[in-house]
Formats: sequence, C-alpha cells, structure tokens
Amino acid sequence: MRPVGIIGIGHTKFGKTEKGFLELLGEAALLCFEDARIAPGPEARIDQVFVASMGGGMVNHISGSASALADSLHLCPAMAECVENGPASGASAVKLGYMAIASGMCDRVLVVGGEKMNVRGGAAATDFVATMLHPEAEYNYGLTLTSFAAMFTRLIMERYGVTMEDVARVAVKNHANAMHNPCAQLHKSVTLEELTQGELRDKINPLVADPLRRYDICPMSDGAAAALLCAMDCRNGAVRTPVRIAGIGQATDTHVVANRAVPTDLQAVRLAAQRAYDMAGLTPAEVDVAELHDAFQILEIVESEEVGFFRRGEGHLAVRRGDTALGGRIPINTSGGLKAKGHPLGATGVSQLVELVRQLRGEAGGRQVPEAHVGLAVNFGGFGNNVVATILTDQ
Amino acid sequence: MRPVGIIGIGHTKFGKTEKGFLELLGEAALLCFEDARIAPGPEARIDQVFVASMGGGMVNHISGSASALADSLHLCPAMAECVENGPASGASAVKLGYMAIASGMCDRVLVVGGEKMNVRGGAAATDFVATMLHPEAEYNYGLTLTSFAAMFTRLIMERYGVTMEDVARVAVKNHANAMHNPCAQLHKSVTLEELTQGELRDKINPLVADPLRRYDICPMSDGAAAALLCAMDCRNGAVRTPVRIAGIGQATDTHVVANRAVPTDLQAVRLAAQRAYDMAGLTPAEVDVAELHDAFQILEIVESEEVGFFRRGEGHLAVRRGDTALGGRIPINTSGGLKAKGHPLGATGVSQLVELVRQLRGEAGGRQVPEAHVGLAVNFGGFGNNVVATILTDQ
Repeated sequence: MRPVGIIGIGHTKFGKTEKGFLELLGEAALLCFEDARIAPGPEARIDQVFVASMGGGMVNHISGSASALADSLHLCPAMAECVENGPASGASAVKLGYMAIASGMCDRVLVVGGEKMNVRGGAAATDFVATMLHPEAEYNYGLTLTSFAAMFTRLIMERYGVTMEDVARVAVKNHANAMHNPCAQLHKSVTLEELTQGELRDKINPLVADPLRRYDICPMSDGAAAALLCAMDCRNGAVRTPVRIAGIGQATDTHVVANRAVPTDLQAVRLAAQRAYDMAGLTPAEVDVAELHDAFQILEIVESEEVGFFRRGEGHLAVRRGDTALGGRIPINTSGGLKAKGHPLGATGVSQLVELVRQLRGEAGGRQVPEAHVGLAVNFGGFGNNVVATILTDQ
Repeated sequence: MRPVGIIGIGHTKFGKTEKGFLELLGEAALLCFEDARIAPGPEARIDQVFVASMGGGMVNHISGSASALADSLHLCPAMAECVENGPASGASAVKLGYMAIASGMCDRVLVVGGEKMNVRGGAAATDFVATMLHPEAEYNYGLTLTSFAAMFTRLIMERYGVTMEDVARVAVKNHANAMHNPCAQLHKSVTLEELTQGELRDKINPLVADPLRRYDICPMSDGAAAALLCAMDCRNGAVRTPVRIAGIGQATDTHVVANRAVPTDLQAVRLAAQRAYDMAGLTPAEVDVAELHDAFQILEIVESEEVGFFRRGEGHLAVRRGDTALGGRIPINTSGGLKAKGHPLGATGVSQLVELVRQLRGEAGGRQVPEAHVGLAVNFGGFGNNVVATILTDQ
C-alpha cells in the first residue's frame, strides 16, 4: 500500500473551557498547520478534512462541522466528512485519512478530533457517554460506562488477583507523567498513600461506583487534537520529516457486553493490535512507547496484556515493578493518559497519535522516552465494541 | 486505482414508520444481502461497515450505530464507522467505502444510510435540518432550509425567467415517476393544474415560504438504503455482476451562503460533477439517467445545469420540453426523487445509487430507461456547502 506519514500535529489544552466546539477544532487545526510549517488556505493543498467527534450532533447540536471547518480554514473545495465511532472516533478518522491517501484519491488529509462535553452539566454528559452502550439491551436499563467499568474491575480482581492499589498505581503514574505535558487537563501529583489510605483517601478519592473511586476514572474534558497526513511519495514541499503510519488494525466485538464468551477478554483490543502488528511487520517487543485507552485505570492494565506487552493476568505486576513508568521497560501513557491528560472523546484517538509523534520526533521534553522509534496507540470505543490500534514509526 | 463495484442493493419503503433507527438500518442491510445472494454473517467476509446518518445522534440519541449494526448482522470483527455529512452523508459513506477498497485495506464494504426523522414531530425536525446551516452566521438567526430555498428560488426566477409553474412541473414529473417505485413514500399523481391553478391549488398546495408551496419541497421521511461494495478484482464467489463506481467527485463551498460571489451558483455541484466526469473519463452527454438532489424542486433545475446537461439558465426550458421525463433526452429522478420517493437524509445518497444500479441492471420496471449504461447521482449537503457526485457504469 502507498505509504502514509504525519507531517504536522496540533493539540489544544484539554480541560474545561468557555470555547465552543468549532473553535476548539479550529484551534487544533491552526496549531497543526503551524507545526507543519504550512500556511492554512488553498495553497496547503488539503484534499480532504475529517472531523472526529462523538457529540458534535448530540451534545453541541451542530451537523456538517467538517464542512464548516474546511470553510473556516479556507480549504474549500477540499472534501470533508465527520466520523463517529464513540470514544474511538479519533483513531477511526486517522484510519480513514490513511485509506484516502493509500487509495490514491488524496495526497494530503487534515484530521481533527474534538469534543465539547462541558455544556449541559455532568449528569447529561454521563447520559451522553452511556449512549455508546447497546441502545436496547444496555442503555435502556440505565447502565452507565462507570457502572460497567466497576463490574469489569470486580471480575478482573477476582480472576487475576489485581487489587485496587494496583489500579491506583496506574493513576499515580499517569498523573506524574502529565506534570510534563503542558496540554494535560490535570497538573497534580498524587501519591499511592493519598489515593488508598485512611481519611485522606475518602476525602480526595471518594467512591463513585464500588469499587471505583474518583482517581480510577478519567475526568470530563473539552479539547481537540489534529494531525496532518501526507503521502510519503508526494510531499509537495513539506519540510517536516514525516512520522510513518506503519500499521492500523481495527476490530469490532459484540455490542452487548453480556454476549461475550469471557467478559474480561477485550477481544477487539487483541485483534486490533494483532492486525496492526501484522500490517507493520512488527512485534510487541519492538514497541518503545505506547498510549493505551485508560478511560478507566483498569483498562490500561488489561490492554497492556491484550496488546502483548505482558502475559494475561500479569499486567498489574508490571505496574508494581514500574515497567510501564517513564524509564521502565515499556512506558505507557507518557502524555498523562486519559486519566490526567483528559478525555475529550472524539479528540482522544488523535491526541494519542500526537503524543507518539512527539515521542518519535524526540520533542517530548521531560517525558521523552529515549530511543523511541516505534509507538503503539489503542483507542477504545464503546465498552470494547470497536477498537482501533495504530502503530507509528520514525522511518 | 483499484476498480470498485456494487454487487448488492437494499432499500426500505420510505415514509413514516413505527420502526426504529437501528431497525431500519438492519432491514436495508438484510435486503442488500438478499439482493447480492450472500448470507449475512462471518462468511459474507465484510471487512468494513459504514453507516451514514445525519441525526443518529442528534435526533435518535444513539452513538456507535455502525458497531451495533455490525454486531446485529454477525459481521464482527468487521471494522465500522458512522459518517455524517448532512444530507450528503449517504454518498460520503459510499465514497469512503470506495477509498477503503481502492486502498487495498478492504475487499468488501457494506454501506447503509438511514434516518428516522419522525420522532419529535415536525417542528423539531425543521430545527434539526436547519443545523446544517452555519451555526453562528445562519442557524442562530433562525434561518431554516426552507426559507433559504425560498430566497434562492426568488433569485433564480428573477435572473433566468423561471416561473413557479416550471418548478411545479418538476414535482409533477417526479410524482409520476414515483408511481412506478414501490419504495417511494408518496404514490400520488398530480397534475400541473392542481398544483398551480385556482382554489384547488390553495387547498392541496398551500404556501409554505413564499414563493414555495407544499409540492415545491420534499416531505419528511424515515427509511434506509444499503449497497454492498466489492473490489472488482476480488469477487470471492459473488454471483451478481457488479455495477462499477466509475467516478466520484466531491467539493465543499463556503458554509455561509451569503459569502458566495454569486449565490445562485451551486459551485460545489459543478466542481463535484466535473471531478466525477474526469475520474470516469466521461462527459455529460454520455449520461443516460440521473438522480439529482431535489430536496427543493428548484434544485433539480439548477443542478441539471451545473452538471452540464443544459446551459446555464435553460434547465427550466428542458423541463417544459419534457427532456428530463421518462422517455426524454436525459431522464432525471426516475425513482421519484426526494420529492416523491422521500428524503430520509442519511439514506438519500445511498438510495440514489440504488436507483442507478436498478436502472443499469435493467431492473427498474415501469420506470426503466432503455439502454441505460451510465448513471450520475448528485447528493447535496447543507445548502450546497458539501456536494458529492457519483457516476456508475454497467461495465
């Protein structure tokens, strides 16, 4: 297939903002053009714009936002579409950008993922997020993502001896990483003691859905991230050295979680990663840095097993050993992850790749992984019903 | 590029129904598999599912419907995404299906477009449809699509001498065509006299937004349509002779209509069609049958000029001569068009191609165009801010 690279990245600060949905998309896109050292407008020769968002319609009451963005950036008559795949919308849009270029129909594609969740208040957002569950078999019965994750965590604890201290260790690590990421939502170091012991725990880390506490769950976020994709064989004067999209894998699983043979298996993660490795011709051992979808901290542990970094049921032991921390064997979520960087749903898949590009370029500052040549991202839709894995390489 | 064809089509009855959004998508998909003579399930070897819809989130409060559909049809682990490009979502999804196959990442792609608009009642639907206008420069000021089309019609009348009788002629023709289409929403012949003269006019064809009357505007519809795309070089035992996707062109225009140099120019239609002709290596004179986006009847007239069938300002003369009727030089909207077949927004772009496949296969029954080898469809997003043109050929 025609090789595709990333020659520009942009990322707004994640968090709670007064900025609107389209404004966030535009800001990330402009930062991306600046990074690529290409001026936006007709001379940027953008053939296609993809906007990734889960709530552009449902929460922000806007349709056609890709067309609006193309117009705002003076990219018309570039083609434009919005893409929705729940919280995996971002990686899906990058995949479609890859296809657009690999097909030969496009040479340059702008992908912007964004979400403006702080609009109707927290309760409405919980409902909105819950729409990614099966509409008739799950959502209708009042299930939320958090209650799902709580049940999932219990099962994992029973099956593999994972403790809530292990889960908290993931949060401590990701909060530490986020201290080095200026775009992260939460700049706040926390210790394992604070999150797990005594009265302090009950104050700063209260129960949300037993056994999950506040720090076991990502926050609600506004924000956007952008990537400029180009055909490696048609650079059109672009000056930045491209980071290559070496592998993309995606898999769906049963929409209804109860229909899965083993509900603790994240089969779509395993299959998506395997497809991405196959396409890239790489193995898990060759990955230097990874961004895994830790919307709930338990997911980082289980995903780290499903993508082949650790054996089944041993991911939490790796966390205890510090294997996934900066300086460890395979640093995970150097950006701060969804937990501390934030999780504006549609932005996350693009944001993960922005972090990997920074790492592979050697531009990650205080959170730089030395000798980072291969990066893996896992973007997780629904409760694992649609997962996209992407592998970037520096050559 | 790798050639791509359509080996299956499915189409629900359009109209007002008690069926839900996901049910409509599933029904169209099953009809499509039946038409392709392929059983749904893992052995159908579907690599990717695209769902096209404008209101799945905003109106039906469902996200991840592509994953849900893939699961319902037992197509997992097929990849899946939802695509939104306003009323042009359907053709956009087919374009993405084309790219997925042309890139070499997929061999078979299922595209299903659908909309369930009859949920919250008419007033909410008018608001929902209006979200395709610019959110800050148009929508916020209370502009609706119908008011826009009314102003547009006035300008066209002043500039080119088009009369409201000409516009009504388009509706009369499309209603006549729909009598032969079992899936059409409105099976009701109307005469020019009924629509334009005397008291009868005021009764059955009342003013909606001066100068537009009821029959100048498409109805509100529920429905879905599906197409099964395949690589022409990798049929995997498919038995139906594929209809070829010979050309796809797409163009965006300014989102704010007032920013256009000449507001009566549908520049994105012209450019999208030109790109499609270039890709297919065909000219307007070689098109045998066309489906144009007549959400408002004036649009069929102006689009017929922009795609090169008639000279600027002469489309209405062609209608008077009967050039665009069955038996005419270039029959337009043999399906009944959006006016009489109905316009479930996300379904329309796919539905147009379903009609062209029927025509090119010679399966269009009472509305069959003899010797139909080349078909053109125009799917129109926003008020012309994002348009997709698709050309199908029978070889």
